[in-house]
Amino acid sequence: MPHISLPEGFPGIRSLAAYRPDTGVALYALAEALLRGDSSLSQADAELIAAFTSSQNDCTFCTCSHAAAARYLLGTDKEIVDAVIADYQTAPVSEKMKMLLAIAQCVQQDARTVSDEIVANARLAGATDREIHDAVLIAATFCMFNRYVDGLATLTPTDPSAYEPMGERMATLGYVPPKHP
Amino acid sequence: MPHISLPEGFPGIRSLAAYRPDTGVALYALAEALLRGDSSLSQADAELIAAFTSSQNDCTFCTCSHAAAARYLLGTDKEIVDAVIADYQTAPVSEKMKMLLAIAQCVQQDARTVSDEIVANARLAGATDREIHDAVLIAATFCMFNRYVDGLATLTPTDPSAYEPMGERMATLGYVPPKHP
Repeated sequence: MPHISLPEGFPGIRSLAAYRPDTGVALYALAEALLRGDSSLSQADAELIAAFTSSQNDCTFCTCSHAAAARYLLGTDKEIVDAVIADYQTAPVSEKMKMLLAIAQCVQQDARTVSDEIVANARLAGATDREIHDAVLIAATFCMFNRYVDGLATLTPTDPSAYEPMGERMATLGYVPPKHP
Repeated sequence: MPHISLPEGFPGIRSLAAYRPDTGVALYALAEALLRGDSSLSQADAELIAAFTSSQNDCTFCTCSHAAAARYLLGTDKEIVDAVIADYQTAPVSEKMKMLLAIAQCVQQDARTVSDEIVANARLAGATDREIHDAVLIAATFCMFNRYVDGLATLTPTDPSAYEPMGERMATLGYVPPKHP
C-alpha cells in the first residue's frame, strides 16, 4: 500500500512519474540516455549494472524489472543475470565487467570508497574512462530510483512473470514516461 | 584529483555534466524541476532538504553548495541552515519541516524504513501527500548526486567562500547545464 495516493494501475516508478510528470519526464530522460544512449557499454551490460545495484539495495521492483530487461537483451546467455546478482565475482562475465560491478558496489555502499587502486585495476582490465564514468552514474542513479520507489512503498508485483513483458518493453521501446491519467 | 579525465575549470557536478552532456541535461532538468519547480515546499525548504541529505552522505561539494543556496534564499534567517545540518530535531524549523527531514533521513539510510507511522506523523504536522513525495524524491536524488560527485572524486573547492556565489547562482538563475568546453 503506497504511502501517498498514487494513480492506480501503474507499478513502481511508473506510478510516481504519473503522479509528478515534470520530474517524471526528467527521470525517464535520464534512464533513456544512461541505459540506451551512446556508450561503449552494451545495453545489456548497463541493465546488468542497474539490476545488480538494485539487488544490493534490496529493491524488489527495480531488481526484477531491470533483471528482466537484461535477460531479454542477453537471450541465450540470460543465466548471467542471476549469476551476477548471486555473486558477481564468480559470474561468467569478463574481468572488465567484474571491475565495473566492483566499482558499482563501492558507489552503492559509500561512493568515497571508490579508490585510485580499484579504478587502476578496472583500467588494467580494459575499462575506459567513459565506462568507469557510466558504471558510477548507473550505480548512483539506481541508488536514487530504488529509494524513490521503496521510500513511497509503490506497488510491487509479487508474481515474477509480471516483470517479463516489462523487461521486454524497457529493452525494446525504452524509457517512455507514462501518460498522466 | 578526479578518477577520470574531466573538463578543467568546472567543480563537482558541473564537470560531470560537461563530460557527458546527454545525461547532464537530464540531471539538470531534474534538479530544476525538483528544487525550483511548482511545489508547496518553498525553494528554501527544498534546498534545505538537499543540503541536509548531502551532509548525511558526507558529500562536501553538494552540502556546501546547496547550504549556500539555502542561506541565500533564507536571508536574515540563514542560521537555520547550519542548525539543521548540526541537528534538525533542535533546529528552529516547523514541526512539519522536522517530519519531512526525518523522512529524508530514512530515505538516505534505507528507504524501506519510511514507515506508515512516520508518514502519519508528518501528516499530523500538516504535510500534504505532495510534500511527502517531494521530500522523498529530493532525498533520493541527492543520494544519487552525492554518489556521482564523490564516486568520481570531482574537484571540491576547499575555501568555504567559493560556495557563496555558487549558491546565489543556483538560487537565482537555477540549474542550467554547463556548455561543453
